[in-house]
Amino acid sequence: MKELSYFEEKMKDSQLIYDGRVLHVYKDRVDLPNGRTSTREYCKHGGAVAVVPLTKDGKVVCVRQYRYALGRVTLEIPAGKLDYPGEDHEEAALRELREETGYRTDKLTPIGNLSTSPALLTEIIYMYLAKDMTLGETDPDEDECLELLEIPLEELVDAILSGQVQDSKTQAAVLKVWAMKQKGMV
Amino acid sequence: MKELSYFEEKMKDSQLIYDGRVLHVYKDRVDLPNGRTSTREYCKHGGAVAVVPLTKDGKVVCVRQYRYALGRVTLEIPAGKLDYPGEDHEEAALRELREETGYRTDKLTPIGNLSTSPALLTEIIYMYLAKDMTLGETDPDEDECLELLEIPLEELVDAILSGQVQDSKTQAAVLKVWAMKQKGMV
Repeated sequence: MKELSYFEEKMKDSQLIYDGRVLHVYKDRVDLPNGRTSTREYCKHGGAVAVVPLTKDGKVVCVRQYRYALGRVTLEIPAGKLDYPGEDHEEAALRELREETGYRTDKLTPIGNLSTSPALLTEIIYMYLAKDMTLGETDPDEDECLELLEIPLEELVDAILSGQVQDSKTQAAVLKVWAMKQKGMV
Repeated sequence: MKELSYFEEKMKDSQLIYDGRVLHVYKDRVDLPNGRTSTREYCKHGGAVAVVPLTKDGKVVCVRQYRYALGRVTLEIPAGKLDYPGEDHEEAALRELREETGYRTDKLTPIGNLSTSPALLTEIIYMYLAKDMTLGETDPDEDECLELLEIPLEELVDAILSGQVQDSKTQAAVLKVWAMKQKGMV
């Protein structure tokens, strides 16, 4: 296997195109390993967390919400941005779980990271499985209109396999939990 | 279950912030269903395709490449943008498969769509399973430096479950194919 340096693209210069509330858009000129020069457009993102909340009777707590960029309602697992750079990922995951679903737990299992769109976004989602949950009050963000659903894990997996769930983190995280269960890992 | 209209966010105005080669960044003001007004920043993207290329001996053909936004080499299934709006998804998938890996096939099975980052990107990836492949010449894009690997499906699933594969489309598509195999669907 070749070394990283064989592939590496080196920055010549970097231009901040748009510094928004959520999106921070950059356009960099880079030297490619093949000697050519190219440009790379991408968005910096502070990172996020997502949780597969599994109830004691084997249901996954999901969220329906309107996604403006897609122009439709999606079914997703609870998730949210880190509040500040360096925020503890598990604390953020527990906060999003609590705010969006009302569930609390002491038992989070990391199930890997997700790079949502490696060519365009620096966004990494830190994913967790939540078990042994207890139910309290929800506390959604002011601009979030959410609807909660509890869906049996097997039914949700079948919905994903038949193409009814589009969200990448939901597909990846739920299939991971299901596969880990098949292999006796969780 | 509530109606879409309950959730819908209606555009007040839309501002094109940056019209780049790949990224087209918008900032819209929207009316929320709760009566408040908010802004939505997002990137329009023309869509993409991705393929799980499964060889006759049960290996997945993967691509290692440097992802500038992430600053590192990733392991991914073959994928690429649609060449023009309205391009046939299957034709695009066969092209990317051929260009990146050299494999050809007549047998593509759709395995659903992926919204990579629903809050930020309109990007949808149309995913396929490719079987009964034959090997020819590769023809990568000029600015792509790729390395090919063939990894047994079970080994790749274990690498995903242990957190060694970050790319969202690769996690989702490979786990889908594996789960569909467990359920006798493919």
